[in-house]
Amino acid sequence: MISKHKISDIRKLHQKKFRDAERLFLVEGWKSVEMLLQSGFEITDIFATESAAEVNQQLLDNRPVTIVSSAEMERISTLATPPELMAVARQAAQPQPIPDNEPVLVLDRIADPGNMGTIIRTADWFNFRHVVCSPDCVEFYNPKTIQATMGSFAHLVPHYTDLVPFLRAQAPRRRILGAFLNGESLNTFKFQSSDIIVIGSESNGISPEVEELVSQRITIPTPVSGRATAESLNAAIAAAIIMCRFAQ
Amino acid sequence: MISKHKISDIRKLHQKKFRDAERLFLVEGWKSVEMLLQSGFEITDIFATESAAEVNQQLLDNRPVTIVSSAEMERISTLATPPELMAVARQAAQPQPIPDNEPVLVLDRIADPGNMGTIIRTADWFNFRHVVCSPDCVEFYNPKTIQATMGSFAHLVPHYTDLVPFLRAQAPRRRILGAFLNGESLNTFKFQSSDIIVIGSESNGISPEVEELVSQRITIPTPVSGRATAESLNAAIAAAIIMCRFAQ
Repeated sequence: MISKHKISDIRKLHQKKFRDAERLFLVEGWKSVEMLLQSGFEITDIFATESAAEVNQQLLDNRPVTIVSSAEMERISTLATPPELMAVARQAAQPQPIPDNEPVLVLDRIADPGNMGTIIRTADWFNFRHVVCSPDCVEFYNPKTIQATMGSFAHLVPHYTDLVPFLRAQAPRRRILGAFLNGESLNTFKFQSSDIIVIGSESNGISPEVEELVSQRITIPTPVSGRATAESLNAAIAAAIIMCRFAQ
Repeated sequence: MISKHKISDIRKLHQKKFRDAERLFLVEGWKSVEMLLQSGFEITDIFATESAAEVNQQLLDNRPVTIVSSAEMERISTLATPPELMAVARQAAQPQPIPDNEPVLVLDRIADPGNMGTIIRTADWFNFRHVVCSPDCVEFYNPKTIQATMGSFAHLVPHYTDLVPFLRAQAPRRRILGAFLNGESLNTFKFQSSDIIVIGSESNGISPEVEELVSQRITIPTPVSGRATAESLNAAIAAAIIMCRFAQ
């Protein structure tokens, strides 16, 4: 049973302005909540249907669990198909400074929460521990982003910062690689462990002021010749292919 | 100006059952309609706002264009932000048989239209001309799929067919590679030009009856050790990385 007041509080967290103000976020679905429970995030609330609470009794022991009906879950969830389990957690503090010898993925104006979440999931897989986002990237704590990370939100929280001063500060010690449609082919390019990889927005690519700071342009070659092909790759796909080649 | 009757006809095409019955589909947005106009698809209707029709006058010359208001466009479009230009086109006939020496991408129960569209776009980029989908894959002509292909729908139409008889017929002449979490690492695997690559569904991977027909298991290795990582990659990401390695 959940009070009307509490339902209203949770529903506010569907909106970014309230997530920002309260520094809280929503985690929905069994798998994501399981990853949250194993993480260092502070959990303020867990909502479970009666059957989900029974199945996960051991895992939820000593946790702030409220049993809710399916109808109540539908009201507090952002999902079209409401989950059996959801949680509210406190947003992480800004991540630690980045060690000089570790690679960095930089995201410039990524707008789609599904792409953002998929990039975080893929970065986690390929051991990119440091993701830096321009302030106008979609919010990491957007429920659709969290959902698309498939639990990797618990392993990897991006930095949000102005890219120009960040890249200027890094430039003396690292190469800044930008993914463009023209550049050195990934088939021959040699990565260095301290490289910074910049991925641009879905519709407009890398912004001009960031492009100025790129020291090396790289490209994912298409083997197609003699016919019309896709004009570009999705931003999450490009990021994945480059991280995979880096990690190889 | 568009009649109420016509609006109702177009809105029916938001639903799969009417798309199936009429063998028509919707193409929304300037870029996608441009790709459609350059393709061999038969176009039955084009709807344009007055300003879009003016800007694209040359392109739309001799085409069945109806000028509509923004409010009318909003009614006939599936998009949250209605486009300036949309079209209705006839679905393609089943694609031609697949030549023996060309690679094939097989999709087993891909459910998300965004993933499906992204896979088609990426296949187009990496010159995979033949994509075969299980009948329970999401529909190619779903407006969200078409949107996510970013115009590649005009270059590449997948086959929909039962995978078991299809793969049985191919098995004597080709290797059937399946993407699994355990298998030979992509870092060492050597592709052959006639390989068939099978990608499984987002939530359940490759189905057991298809798995039985896989002759070689391949995997995208994670460099992570000693900490929890992403448990898997998104299906479109996995498909992209494998196609990229094949094309390299």
